[in-house]
Amino acid sequence: MSDHPRGFASDNSAGAHPDVLEAVAAANDGHVPAYGEDPYTAAAEQRFRDDFGEHARTFFVFNGSAANVLALLAAARPADAVICPETAHMNVDEAGAPERIAGVKLLTVHTPDGKLTPELVARRVERVGDQHAVQPRVVSISEATELGTVYTPDEIRALADLARERGMLVHVDGARLANAAASLDLPLRALSTDAGVDLLSFGGTKNGMLLGDAVVLLNAELAADFQFVRKQSMQLASKMRFIAAQFEALLRDDLWLRNASHANAMALRLARAVKEIPGVRITQLVEANGVFALIPREATQRLLAEWPGELPFHVWSEQTGEVRWMTAWDTTEADVDRFAEAVAEAVGAGG
Amino acid sequence: MSDHPRGFASDNSAGAHPDVLEAVAAANDGHVPAYGEDPYTAAAEQRFRDDFGEHARTFFVFNGSAANVLALLAAARPADAVICPETAHMNVDEAGAPERIAGVKLLTVHTPDGKLTPELVARRVERVGDQHAVQPRVVSISEATELGTVYTPDEIRALADLARERGMLVHVDGARLANAAASLDLPLRALSTDAGVDLLSFGGTKNGMLLGDAVVLLNAELAADFQFVRKQSMQLASKMRFIAAQFEALLRDDLWLRNASHANAMALRLARAVKEIPGVRITQLVEANGVFALIPREATQRLLAEWPGELPFHVWSEQTGEVRWMTAWDTTEADVDRFAEAVAEAVGAGG
Amino acid sequence: MSDHPRGFASDNSAGAHPDVLEAVAAANDGHVPAYGEDPYTAAAEQRFRDDFGEHARTFFVFNGSAANVLALLAAARPADAVICPETAHMNVDEAGAPERIAGVKLLTVHTPDGKLTPELVARRVERVGDQHAVQPRVVSISEATELGTVYTPDEIRALADLARERGMLVHVDGARLANAAASLDLPLRALSTDAGVDLLSFGGTKNGMLLGDAVVLLNAELAADFQFVRKQSMQLASKMRFIAAQFEALLRDDLWLRNASHANAMALRLARAVKEIPGVRITQLVEANGVFALIPREATQRLLAEWPGELPFHVWSEQTGEVRWMTAWDTTEADVDRFAEAVAEAVGAGG
Amino acid sequence: MSDHPRGFASDNSAGAHPDVLEAVAAANDGHVPAYGEDPYTAAAEQRFRDDFGEHARTFFVFNGSAANVLALLAAARPADAVICPETAHMNVDEAGAPERIAGVKLLTVHTPDGKLTPELVARRVERVGDQHAVQPRVVSISEATELGTVYTPDEIRALADLARERGMLVHVDGARLANAAASLDLPLRALSTDAGVDLLSFGGTKNGMLLGDAVVLLNAELAADFQFVRKQSMQLASKMRFIAAQFEALLRDDLWLRNASHANAMALRLARAVKEIPGVRITQLVEANGVFALIPREATQRLLAEWPGELPFHVWSEQTGEVRWMTAWDTTEADVDRFAEAVAEAVGAGG
Repeated sequence: MSDHPRGFASDNSAGAHPDVLEAVAAANDGHVPAYGEDPYTAAAEQRFRDDFGEHARTFFVFNGSAANVLALLAAARPADAVICPETAHMNVDEAGAPERIAGVKLLTVHTPDGKLTPELVARRVERVGDQHAVQPRVVSISEATELGTVYTPDEIRALADLARERGMLVHVDGARLANAAASLDLPLRALSTDAGVDLLSFGGTKNGMLLGDAVVLLNAELAADFQFVRKQSMQLASKMRFIAAQFEALLRDDLWLRNASHANAMALRLARAVKEIPGVRITQLVEANGVFALIPREATQRLLAEWPGELPFHVWSEQTGEVRWMTAWDTTEADVDRFAEAVAEAVGAGG
Repeated sequence: MSDHPRGFASDNSAGAHPDVLEAVAAANDGHVPAYGEDPYTAAAEQRFRDDFGEHARTFFVFNGSAANVLALLAAARPADAVICPETAHMNVDEAGAPERIAGVKLLTVHTPDGKLTPELVARRVERVGDQHAVQPRVVSISEATELGTVYTPDEIRALADLARERGMLVHVDGARLANAAASLDLPLRALSTDAGVDLLSFGGTKNGMLLGDAVVLLNAELAADFQFVRKQSMQLASKMRFIAAQFEALLRDDLWLRNASHANAMALRLARAVKEIPGVRITQLVEANGVFALIPREATQRLLAEWPGELPFHVWSEQTGEVRWMTAWDTTEADVDRFAEAVAEAVGAGG
Repeated sequence: MSDHPRGFASDNSAGAHPDVLEAVAAANDGHVPAYGEDPYTAAAEQRFRDDFGEHARTFFVFNGSAANVLALLAAARPADAVICPETAHMNVDEAGAPERIAGVKLLTVHTPDGKLTPELVARRVERVGDQHAVQPRVVSISEATELGTVYTPDEIRALADLARERGMLVHVDGARLANAAASLDLPLRALSTDAGVDLLSFGGTKNGMLLGDAVVLLNAELAADFQFVRKQSMQLASKMRFIAAQFEALLRDDLWLRNASHANAMALRLARAVKEIPGVRITQLVEANGVFALIPREATQRLLAEWPGELPFHVWSEQTGEVRWMTAWDTTEADVDRFAEAVAEAVGAGG
Repeated sequence: MSDHPRGFASDNSAGAHPDVLEAVAAANDGHVPAYGEDPYTAAAEQRFRDDFGEHARTFFVFNGSAANVLALLAAARPADAVICPETAHMNVDEAGAPERIAGVKLLTVHTPDGKLTPELVARRVERVGDQHAVQPRVVSISEATELGTVYTPDEIRALADLARERGMLVHVDGARLANAAASLDLPLRALSTDAGVDLLSFGGTKNGMLLGDAVVLLNAELAADFQFVRKQSMQLASKMRFIAAQFEALLRDDLWLRNASHANAMALRLARAVKEIPGVRITQLVEANGVFALIPREATQRLLAEWPGELPFHVWSEQTGEVRWMTAWDTTEADVDRFAEAVAEAVGAGG
């Protein structure tokens, strides 16, 4: 058994899928040109065109923060602003990178479930043309959201329609786009290309890669200079083949889908197992690979103390005591069942 | 035989050393905390303390451009400038990242061999305290240099003495520090910690890693905020263990030294093999893993056309026709001998 | 009579006080060193030391946005954040300059009256030391606020105490500090130096100057590099004497106080005159030179159409119809009385 | 007599022309809209259209550094570079603002006389499309140059032709465009609009204004977002009328031309008076309002010590001892003659 037992802290706590590692090893063969001029990168780019459409231009970067920030950098001009949910990763977990590196201001929107709506967005599209005010230029959504919820294609399309009408672009933070597509049983392009999205971050790390993210540009204008944006932002890998090969493995034979479907199923299994426990309240729809719940603080303390491994899960809100349980591509049914039991015990012991 | 024959284009064209790949596979075990709170990262950080001194603070990043730029960002205040050779990677091959991301101006110095001297540096330390002028704050050298030459510890120490005297810090771009240390048969700290260096970029990618670089801070003040600099600059890996494990493998049992020594030896073998060919002139001391030479342009054309693989080497200067031949950890004696013969033929056929 | 009748749109709509203009003319004599090495600048700097304390270091800049942004730039390190009210000028009326130029994120706080309290601030001091999150470093308040309200010295001191305790600095946007001091009948230093403030923007433009603002640093550490921050941010005037002379005139013989007291008095006169009109509701305390009121939208339309001059006042909130009436150093009692009558008529005609 | 005797340190040491001051006083009348929506600004903008062409879009800013940097900010995309002479103000006297604020890299060119030529520029247009390298996007020239020399319209046109051919824009730093136009006896547009220039900085401060500069955009595309660039860069004056009125006075009845012609004539008078003195060598063509000369270092010491006033002139090069003597709109023939005599004495006493 592993020295590192699996918990529910983050899909980033998991390792890489064996097929991904194997693809890296297979790519470790002889000399190929650096910086993306190699056959592995060409093959991976073709996979993205297969999945997102022939006009998709894909640029590999190292991580999700970079994918988000570079996307904004490509889309924004001076004084431009980005409308996003208050809970957006770029707002709360990127240490101010959108502001300092992309130079944008985030116009945040309070949402109950992490999802923007045309009404919420429209309210922030103000002072257009007023030189004193930042100008809304990008609407950024996370699919799936930080709260484990999922937009339908129609919901995205409605945002895209509003955006186009108001001269804005739509960006998708797709760190978990795979989970959303799996959840809806739809191809990736249904939630991006076909829904009117202009550019997206497509994450690989959380879904079974060692590391790596992709910026997918569906709007040709944005692609013109992007190679310079990437290099200048320190996101051009020299041995690009080792990121590309991972993506190739992920998109080949739908490994992305199998990984994400499994993680989603494990989240749902967990939700089902705990939702009837008195004292546990699931707070969000479980549509991807995260379960958000309110449990007594003492139960949280007990679980954190007793579960093996470093940190089994995160307290999402210190104020309410809400917790977040994330599943990953490698979470097993046994992991879930054992954890659900532990929750039941911890909550039961509460009284 | 590989589909991807080895050439002499770049040490970035090579793959990863098998031990590195094996270490990645070994680290792919269960769940560990993300973002560097894992045991692999702790172990790798300890290796750096072993090699650079107990006070060394090491931060892993994705690539060498990032290591350089983040080092400057940590060291520089508004209006600060960096003195570096005209040939510095940060000046010519980072697409303006030092300027846009770190906000510094580079005060470049023309050098015949890619090496700064106290005299050359002193000439650029001017207008100190003049509010109209950028203020020299960092001296940045590459060890080994872009031209394959190497500073001795005394040469670095002399620069560090001048820097300290003038209120400046010394940064080493150590993308090939391993090659320099191997060349001089000295430990890594002799060219950094013990020579008065304040901060360095220590490269792994060119020396047998898949990807990964480290910022090593030898000056405690600079380390205080560095975790924020790294995160905000989009260089914090979520599955950090996979970078750390590579470094652990590289520093364990001196793999770094074996890789670099071998690459250096191959460069020297190549230099020896071609230096007596009429029409070939070696233009720089061969102290690391690069050979710079002038050969007739027709010979270059012939070699580029006939050698198998994508691009066997780079023309370093379109103006003079100077070429650069890089060796890597995996270059074989047979590769070198075959290439030297090809050079001889190509040059001989020239008349 | 002037071609440009006075309205209540903004204190920026007013011209300069005759004494200020006279001081500029008097400074227009012969050659003096550029960039602040002149006797006029020395004299003005001394005035600031007289008013803010011997250790105050003053740097003249062109406008209030610059004073704010440069203050933040001086105080903030990478990933630092600024806690400020949602209504802060730097949040809503500086086109994203704090984000793009100073590189900070603003952590905004909803307030009913434009004033922060220790409780409101404390709630935003979170995730300190968490590398994923911006780090609260500056608390920025406006004195007087954008809503015409004023902090007492005790209120500022309480914020400063909290800030110091939590390792933060206090910045005052003092575009209207004169109005606040006049309102409280206190010297300028009571609301800054003596209340524990670290740095402030002291505005001249709105209070009778042609243009010009000052960054006053009360914390010696911040002053060390500030001359470079100013120059690099394009805020170093070559003919500095013409800004300095204006400030000298403003601080000499308390012109600042007379101008601000008069403007305040005119606001109060206006508030008194309209507050009993049925259909008019004053929405904020009238403590400086602005009156915020709710009046029927039809009354607003009528007033905007009928009052002479370009735009007599601004609608503050399109949503609620709240209006803002600003007075200036040159607003006369007759102006106020005439306007109050017009308001009464417009509102009365409403039914 | 003035307490502040006139010297030859800088055209920034001079005050404002009386007509300019009078225009400011005349504009100090009643209330007008802030931020440029006033009739003074409209009138001044019309003057610029009269002088630069009907399509010229003019934006007033506070100083020349800002005009230059904002022009670059408007023209440059990420990874773009600016080709300029080594001696360019933006390279040596703006404290790194182009790099930090506009995010560009300057590709500098060594020139004997401060003037670029198509040949010099062409040599720096390299690595176009190479993602590792900054991309030349703007050619920036100073007219007149920092060395007091002047481009002819044909010389500018030749640069503009090259720029257009290579996909670059031409920017003119026109801090002394008036002096150049006066020198050539040509209208302003002959050296800008009619010569193929895309955008320029037009300086007022050195030519008799209190302060103020203008960015003139001759390329409609660049103007689209410029109001936001200006505001976000903290260069939008609230009481804009006081900058506009100065420009209106400067362009009305050719005051700009009279001021510049006079300053130029005084420089020429000085050059003529000193050029035959043994030991004095004029080093640059005297085409604008600066005289560059080599005189013995002892003579320089003597002059600096004995001439009344703070600092009569600057040593241009510490290395060679070259000095710079600048004339201004208010330099008198008597000033010149007295100074020439002092030079003769100081040099004569040298032996």
